[in-house]
Amino acid sequence: MTTPHKLTGADRDKALAALADHGWAPVEGRDAIAKRFVFSDFNEAFGWMTRVALVAEHMNHHPEWFNVYKTVEVTLATHDVGGLSNLDVALASKMDRLAG
Amino acid sequence: MTTPHKLTGADRDKALAALADHGWAPVEGRDAIAKRFVFSDFNEAFGWMTRVALVAEHMNHHPEWFNVYKTVEVTLATHDVGGLSNLDVALASKMDRLAG
Repeated sequence: MTTPHKLTGADRDKALAALADHGWAPVEGRDAIAKRFVFSDFNEAFGWMTRVALVAEHMNHHPEWFNVYKTVEVTLATHDVGGLSNLDVALASKMDRLAG
Repeated sequence: MTTPHKLTGADRDKALAALADHGWAPVEGRDAIAKRFVFSDFNEAFGWMTRVALVAEHMNHHPEWFNVYKTVEVTLATHDVGGLSNLDVALASKMDRLAG
């Protein structure tokens, strides 16, 4: 388990640019990132959520997420640092990988 | 699997009254019901979501839900009937029972 550190300045810009390539966008009015994942049905969507949940629990870093049927809208931020951290970047990357 | 039928009139009032006893409230501006479930931690919250997901898939009737750590905010409505149906009442009751 890694201690989160807040991303600022050039580190933050670089991370956001890399995340943008994978469909993650900054959230209006919050130091957070968001992405909408769309699967083929509820089974696929919730199956993915379950795999992410195991990863998140292991990281002790959890997403905010909204699910309706085959769609999952995810927001990532780190409460303990009051914004975007290295853990958000790591979790975003794992979510992308698990979504295949 | 049951075919949904829209709740109206006295049936709807009766259902809403029974649901209100269990913490379900009508949603402002939508023919839907909502409830916030709070668990002890993410493990408990997501464990409950997983059990509900299996029930929902079996019913072929799925919730709208938002999870942050130990909290799950649920909204139930039935797209096919454009409002609240018997399936929403059934799923709400199962969610309550699984939350213990």
